[in-house]
Amino acid sequence: MALDLAILSGAGALPPDLARAYPDALCITFTGINHSLPGRTEDHSFERLGKLFAVLKERGIRRVVMAGSMYRPALNPENFDAFMRQISPQLVAALQLGDDGLLRFVIDLFESHGFTVCGAHELLPELTAKAGILSQVVPQSKHHEDIEKGRALLGVLSDADIGQSTVFENGLCLGIETLQGTDALLRFVGQTPSYLRRGQGGVLIKTPKSGQDLRVDMPTIGPDTIREVQAAGLAGLAIDAGRVLLLEPEQTRALVAQFGLFLIAQEI
Amino acid sequence: MALDLAILSGAGALPPDLARAYPDALCITFTGINHSLPGRTEDHSFERLGKLFAVLKERGIRRVVMAGSMYRPALNPENFDAFMRQISPQLVAALQLGDDGLLRFVIDLFESHGFTVCGAHELLPELTAKAGILSQVVPQSKHHEDIEKGRALLGVLSDADIGQSTVFENGLCLGIETLQGTDALLRFVGQTPSYLRRGQGGVLIKTPKSGQDLRVDMPTIGPDTIREVQAAGLAGLAIDAGRVLLLEPEQTRALVAQFGLFLIAQEI
Repeated sequence: MALDLAILSGAGALPPDLARAYPDALCITFTGINHSLPGRTEDHSFERLGKLFAVLKERGIRRVVMAGSMYRPALNPENFDAFMRQISPQLVAALQLGDDGLLRFVIDLFESHGFTVCGAHELLPELTAKAGILSQVVPQSKHHEDIEKGRALLGVLSDADIGQSTVFENGLCLGIETLQGTDALLRFVGQTPSYLRRGQGGVLIKTPKSGQDLRVDMPTIGPDTIREVQAAGLAGLAIDAGRVLLLEPEQTRALVAQFGLFLIAQEI
Repeated sequence: MALDLAILSGAGALPPDLARAYPDALCITFTGINHSLPGRTEDHSFERLGKLFAVLKERGIRRVVMAGSMYRPALNPENFDAFMRQISPQLVAALQLGDDGLLRFVIDLFESHGFTVCGAHELLPELTAKAGILSQVVPQSKHHEDIEKGRALLGVLSDADIGQSTVFENGLCLGIETLQGTDALLRFVGQTPSYLRRGQGGVLIKTPKSGQDLRVDMPTIGPDTIREVQAAGLAGLAIDAGRVLLLEPEQTRALVAQFGLFLIAQEI
């Protein structure tokens, strides 16, 4: 039972997964933001958060989960309700802070209005992987070396608030994720001319940045990631146990098996 | 006069620039490596470096400059001369070390045979930029902020031996160069969906890695770089004074002017 839960829904497979697991939850969508929820949704607007808070309270909602990708919507101040007009100065400041700062601001808004902000991984723990090798294929020692190099690089980058992912292959760095996301990184890697690569068989390493708020911005992999890993000529993936979401986990694992990749979740 | 100089020529505009400035230099090309030198070249093979050293000494060559891009040629040990057979064990070790290690090994080989390895920038100082703004258009304060962020990131990455270049735009990192090179980075940046960018007007920041041997592996920009910067929707470029080569400097500057970009060389 989750009559006190609202799912604030963006695009992708995660909101439907949550809605299935919590059939009594209130599903909120936002004007201008894609979503893939079947029926049963209530549409709101980022320009009228005051109204959203009032509706959530009326319905007895105490917990909210933000799920799915929500690119910054274009806000038209003419449509702001009283609440949004009141917080406009702080919003202006938050908009300068980058995505992490803006998310932090949104979380604080909800919390200061008495809501608890949950992470999808707290509501659906089975969406994250336990430590271990999740595939029949096992990484070889050269893959472990690439994973170590990738993790070391991501550790360094994390302090600069950049990069959830990198690809290493036989000791070479083939790419670093920036704001275009993991799939764009993998397509870029796949276009690397073969004379620049030392054979194939690299590894995608994906991990949260240090200080990343896993409640609202958790790294994810899913079937599309696996297809791009395969298309890029890589041998497998290394993720953090408990800190990276597996979207559509059954299909994700099935594709890993079908392509003969490895998938390892590591306790960090 | 440079009767004691040999230009070891790879692809690109730099070998012809050097050949024009040093018309008496001996131009060496390599089987399987593209070059754009008109006439007057002598072809050698990486598989017969013993023969190359003998020829260079016969001709009175004392200085060599490696210029242009030379991707790793496929070496066939069956074609090795006695010298190459002798150094094979060390070559095997060097090949594991990555490009920087391999270059270091090649430099040591030449030096241990009595040659001086020069940098193209030492022979053609006018190919590097003096500190200052090399364009009519001047970077604005937001561009200086992006340049500072980019330099800070490259400083961090340098210790991991990654990245000569990065693109920042209004505080966001749009890409980091890996082994695919600067043009590939810029094409990737240009494909970034506009909803992920905060407007246009970013900066390409390019600088040597710490410890990079500028004699054989100096960062370069040229007309193609400027075209890609323009195509990616950026506002300009920031490079190091004296430590980044400007290929075809006149055409490079003309394109900077034509596209209304800025180009700043900074004393580091």
